[in-house]
Amino acid sequence: MKPFLDKDFLLQTDAAKTLYHEHAAKMPIIDYHCHLIPQMVAEDHRFSSITELWLGGDHYKWRAMRTNGVDERYCTGKDTTDWEKFQKWAETVPYTMRNPLYHWTHLELKTAFGIEKLLSPKTAREIFDECNEKLKSPEYSARGLMRRYHVECVCTTDDPVDDLRYHKQTAESGFEIRMLPAWRPDKAMAVEVPANFRAYIDKLSEVSGVKISHFQDMIDALQKRHDFFAQMGSRLADHGIEEFYAEDYTDAEINAIFDKVYGGKVLTQEEIRKFKSAMLVIFAEMDYEAGWAQQFHYGAIRDNNSKMFKLLGPDTGFDSIGEFNTAKAMSKFLDRLNAEGKLTRTILYNLNPSANEVIATMLGNFQDGSYPGKIQFGSGWWFLDQKDGMEKQMNALSLLGLLSRFVGMLTDSRSFLSYPRHEYFRRTLCNLLGNDIENGLLPASEMDFIGQMVENISYYNAKNYFNF
Amino acid sequence: MKPFLDKDFLLQTDAAKTLYHEHAAKMPIIDYHCHLIPQMVAEDHRFSSITELWLGGDHYKWRAMRTNGVDERYCTGKDTTDWEKFQKWAETVPYTMRNPLYHWTHLELKTAFGIEKLLSPKTAREIFDECNEKLKSPEYSARGLMRRYHVECVCTTDDPVDDLRYHKQTAESGFEIRMLPAWRPDKAMAVEVPANFRAYIDKLSEVSGVKISHFQDMIDALQKRHDFFAQMGSRLADHGIEEFYAEDYTDAEINAIFDKVYGGKVLTQEEIRKFKSAMLVIFAEMDYEAGWAQQFHYGAIRDNNSKMFKLLGPDTGFDSIGEFNTAKAMSKFLDRLNAEGKLTRTILYNLNPSANEVIATMLGNFQDGSYPGKIQFGSGWWFLDQKDGMEKQMNALSLLGLLSRFVGMLTDSRSFLSYPRHEYFRRTLCNLLGNDIENGLLPASEMDFIGQMVENISYYNAKNYFNF
Amino acid sequence: MKPFLDKDFLLQTDAAKTLYHEHAAKMPIIDYHCHLIPQMVAEDHRFSSITELWLGGDHYKWRAMRTNGVDERYCTGKDTTDWEKFQKWAETVPYTMRNPLYHWTHLELKTAFGIEKLLSPKTAREIFDECNEKLKSPEYSARGLMRRYHVECVCTTDDPVDDLRYHKQTAESGFEIRMLPAWRPDKAMAVEVPANFRAYIDKLSEVSGVKISHFQDMIDALQKRHDFFAQMGSRLADHGIEEFYAEDYTDAEINAIFDKVYGGKVLTQEEIRKFKSAMLVIFAEMDYEAGWAQQFHYGAIRDNNSKMFKLLGPDTGFDSIGEFNTAKAMSKFLDRLNAEGKLTRTILYNLNPSANEVIATMLGNFQDGSYPGKIQFGSGWWFLDQKDGMEKQMNALSLLGLLSRFVGMLTDSRSFLSYPRHEYFRRTLCNLLGNDIENGLLPASEMDFIGQMVENISYYNAKNYFNF
Repeated sequence: MKPFLDKDFLLQTDAAKTLYHEHAAKMPIIDYHCHLIPQMVAEDHRFSSITELWLGGDHYKWRAMRTNGVDERYCTGKDTTDWEKFQKWAETVPYTMRNPLYHWTHLELKTAFGIEKLLSPKTAREIFDECNEKLKSPEYSARGLMRRYHVECVCTTDDPVDDLRYHKQTAESGFEIRMLPAWRPDKAMAVEVPANFRAYIDKLSEVSGVKISHFQDMIDALQKRHDFFAQMGSRLADHGIEEFYAEDYTDAEINAIFDKVYGGKVLTQEEIRKFKSAMLVIFAEMDYEAGWAQQFHYGAIRDNNSKMFKLLGPDTGFDSIGEFNTAKAMSKFLDRLNAEGKLTRTILYNLNPSANEVIATMLGNFQDGSYPGKIQFGSGWWFLDQKDGMEKQMNALSLLGLLSRFVGMLTDSRSFLSYPRHEYFRRTLCNLLGNDIENGLLPASEMDFIGQMVENISYYNAKNYFNF
Repeated sequence: MKPFLDKDFLLQTDAAKTLYHEHAAKMPIIDYHCHLIPQMVAEDHRFSSITELWLGGDHYKWRAMRTNGVDERYCTGKDTTDWEKFQKWAETVPYTMRNPLYHWTHLELKTAFGIEKLLSPKTAREIFDECNEKLKSPEYSARGLMRRYHVECVCTTDDPVDDLRYHKQTAESGFEIRMLPAWRPDKAMAVEVPANFRAYIDKLSEVSGVKISHFQDMIDALQKRHDFFAQMGSRLADHGIEEFYAEDYTDAEINAIFDKVYGGKVLTQEEIRKFKSAMLVIFAEMDYEAGWAQQFHYGAIRDNNSKMFKLLGPDTGFDSIGEFNTAKAMSKFLDRLNAEGKLTRTILYNLNPSANEVIATMLGNFQDGSYPGKIQFGSGWWFLDQKDGMEKQMNALSLLGLLSRFVGMLTDSRSFLSYPRHEYFRRTLCNLLGNDIENGLLPASEMDFIGQMVENISYYNAKNYFNF
Repeated sequence: MKPFLDKDFLLQTDAAKTLYHEHAAKMPIIDYHCHLIPQMVAEDHRFSSITELWLGGDHYKWRAMRTNGVDERYCTGKDTTDWEKFQKWAETVPYTMRNPLYHWTHLELKTAFGIEKLLSPKTAREIFDECNEKLKSPEYSARGLMRRYHVECVCTTDDPVDDLRYHKQTAESGFEIRMLPAWRPDKAMAVEVPANFRAYIDKLSEVSGVKISHFQDMIDALQKRHDFFAQMGSRLADHGIEEFYAEDYTDAEINAIFDKVYGGKVLTQEEIRKFKSAMLVIFAEMDYEAGWAQQFHYGAIRDNNSKMFKLLGPDTGFDSIGEFNTAKAMSKFLDRLNAEGKLTRTILYNLNPSANEVIATMLGNFQDGSYPGKIQFGSGWWFLDQKDGMEKQMNALSLLGLLSRFVGMLTDSRSFLSYPRHEYFRRTLCNLLGNDIENGLLPASEMDFIGQMVENISYYNAKNYFNF
């Protein structure tokens, strides 16, 4: 019987152990897509307690607690103490067995705090105290945690109107780990609510110094911000879309749609889709011109619980996996760019695993030999960011594309304790390869090549792909 | 090599064996959703032959026989004998290897009749005779079989117009196993064929004593029947829907739609969807007020073979798995109820396994901490009621929700021999957990907790959830 | 550790080894669906080099090379030598680890050329030379390769306007392996581009000798060609469709649509769907009358890269897996035929594995006992033609239908080196069964029956089903 979470966690074969311990473990972390709060890095934030660090904004844990019958007061409430919240979480942990939270929790306790006890009501107090004691030490600051996990570079997720002051401050501070901005312009195509859109455009105008009256002004303003992001070291963009939009449209239509929504009128569904279709192309062209990579995250349905949305706002644990037939739109969108020679390196992330094979074969349509793995199937995202999800993504990519050229893992996280997910990913990767070797599906004679492949997927592929 | 169907059937690890034999096996059966014919329990039906018991209404077996080249006469025909039908089934059995029927068949022979021989043309006669001989004994009556499998409580599936006389008769007879009705009002929203709907409403009027002229009258009549079901011990409702309906509608529209269809006019597709949308909400409100749980079974496409439908009617083996993008409607429907504070405990069952992740993440949107596992992902249903389907459902639930809070298995069956499916489910559950323990994915030190979890999923979770 | 690609490749258990070596390996190959070029068989083509044989038209390899960063010149270019192309392929091969190409490549080297070295830049030259040397020998001609792999019968894929001269020539040459034509009339329902359709109809008129002015003329011409194909030994039809079409239509509508498109006018989407709906039924009726089997391949989205389509045309590696909700149309189409008593033996192939369960349950709706396995779930197709895809297809079929009645593998290939895929399939099949036996899910006592089942799926089922 394999011990729980020992040094060979997730590694079922000798080949897997060799690959992990000799190749994967030593590689630095490039976290090319995360949601860290730049101010916390700039100011080298110190955490008041494990509750702040763990439960301050983690909607995965809140969901589990709500499911386990824990009252909202202990998730997001203001009238409960750190200890009370932690206690409720500790009560919930044993009930998360088989959920990735059970692994994340203990992997984080072990790798960050050196705690190998299982968290439960019985151990809650001592673990709470021990963590909090350690958090007082400087090595548990935001930057300290990044150093602990051997992070080399992170890319945050930033709005075009962001002034990136904390990125600048961090860079100037001489912090040895790079924190680069990434361009996430979702609000510039969120035309569903005219007033919100107008407010955003006004802000964009202010920040960019471009007076915005017409559609082209908005684009000029966005281009100025894109240039600024590039100047600040940005290497990639990201788009969170429900599905792909690839409607036919004319410039005149888009100009008119802009005027309408900017003028405060609600758009039709068709107008919304046309506008988004145009914006996706324009953004993609900017990325191409700047030599960036672009990411597309699609497939979530968000804010499903209107009651809780009113109370807590977005990203509080009320999103889920949607169902979309979007393959044709995705293809048409990519083809438009490709046909005009402006398709840059692109990463596609789905959320419903039943689309894995769609994505994995979509890549091949636009691989053009200009860069190995130019079009990428993004790593298991959000709900799929666990052993099963990672395995399915890597299996689909392997079978229908080239795993060897994969840019690998990202945390997509706002937590400074999420880096063990890279370890988790690498163990899972090594285990897949190890099983294949053990079963005669890959030749054991090629361990050197496979070891290099592991290093590439863990580190070098991303480093080269994003030109870090 | 593991022997076929021995005491450790499906149990691959020592941990799995311990969990099953020490925790799962001893738990009584709560079969909270079945299609037993209440009259058969009330009258303690005796079976004339294994053919009646096995082939009398089992469309799974008929499908297999038709696929195997067996003429319809031996499936549903009136001109063939019990022996002839059984013989054809026995010929088919070896050809069902890898199909769950192969396991069900031999598990039923073993657990009900103590027969460990494999059924085939060679053994057909002796097994036929042995079963029939045993069926003559009182312990093989309907009630006898329920006792044999350690059943504690069953919920049948009943139409609002049913008088539940057999439930009453059974309860009054002092039968120690509880048989409760469950509310299945599909016909009250089946407005596709005006004449059928009218006939149903007239029947409803008669049974409820409510004169029905308008929509609200129908609702009043249904409420009276709902109250009656509650009084008769009902604890849950069930809805068989093709997909979720969550159109916008007004009361005036629904009143008009009722008048139209009750008046004999065919509705438009839009009207049908609006009507169903309204009825789903009204039924859900009734369930909430009564403190019941509600179930939604969606995703089948039914009666695909019009020729055979004309000959044999529904539920004769001509249904299959459909494809629906229904996540947004499901979310909108649940959100409506949740927003008005009237979302009761709810179980969602899908039929297409590619929606597993959609369901498993939908739950989390509406878990509100009021009850552990308030929103449930229903166990592998119908075509998915087999090892692979169960494993996929439990894996999705584990990864995206809390397996520990799962209310577990139901038979959904009209057969008194289906109870071994609970055993099958429990073995599969224990095997999943056992593999995780063996592989170091769960801590072996927590066997007590995991054992309790197995008991909960096998029995206690359902008992508490339904308040039995 | 299992050696790579040894005699027990893919066989994990003793039972699997027995099944493969004693039952599967010896069976001849029936390749009932391929894309061999008949002229090459008729003329017993000799290959100028391994590059011609491997890279001349293999879009799987081109896709992998493009993904690996190889310039198009080395895939489809005219200005690069055979050696240069081969060298680029050899560079790519190690990067295909975990992709089926890695297995196909080495399995083909081993079984055709007796080469057990791994292909890589280091071994490229010697392997290139050794293959080319062997290709000079007569046993490496087109027919020689078919003999080498113990092929008994192949069915090519032919357009109704084809004169089948090479089939005739081959038959008359006394070649001991049968090459039969199969009917693939996709162009007769491709009404998207009026000029193309008109050109096709004119060609059909010429070949059939039927003057075509109206819709019925076209049908008469097609019927004549169908008769001719039957006379030439054809036993089956194939239809490549994006999704199923089952719109309602009248004869008058179809006549008018024909007149419109034949007259050069572009059809509406609705007209196109109606026309395709009608043609699918008419073709299916012809197949029924002739006693043929029919195949439907659906679910691809094709020619996604318009730039490369203009340069290279179709089938050059720019197709991928689509997303379609087509279950209801599929059901309606099959039901139409079944209701009129004209549903012949039918094989359904999907491309998106998330539809596996839809197909596997659709079968059962139309199994009528007239022939074992009358409606078939086609083997893993195209992108799914690999271990994982085959396993998923066989598992879905097993769980929801009867694996024992499966007609098994086809290559769908234009290469004379694709026959090892039958070996691959058989090993995968035996491995699935072997694992079940080893795990006590199938009885070890039934090895004779299971061995026969393996022989049936490998050979006899297809032989009987197609009446070869």
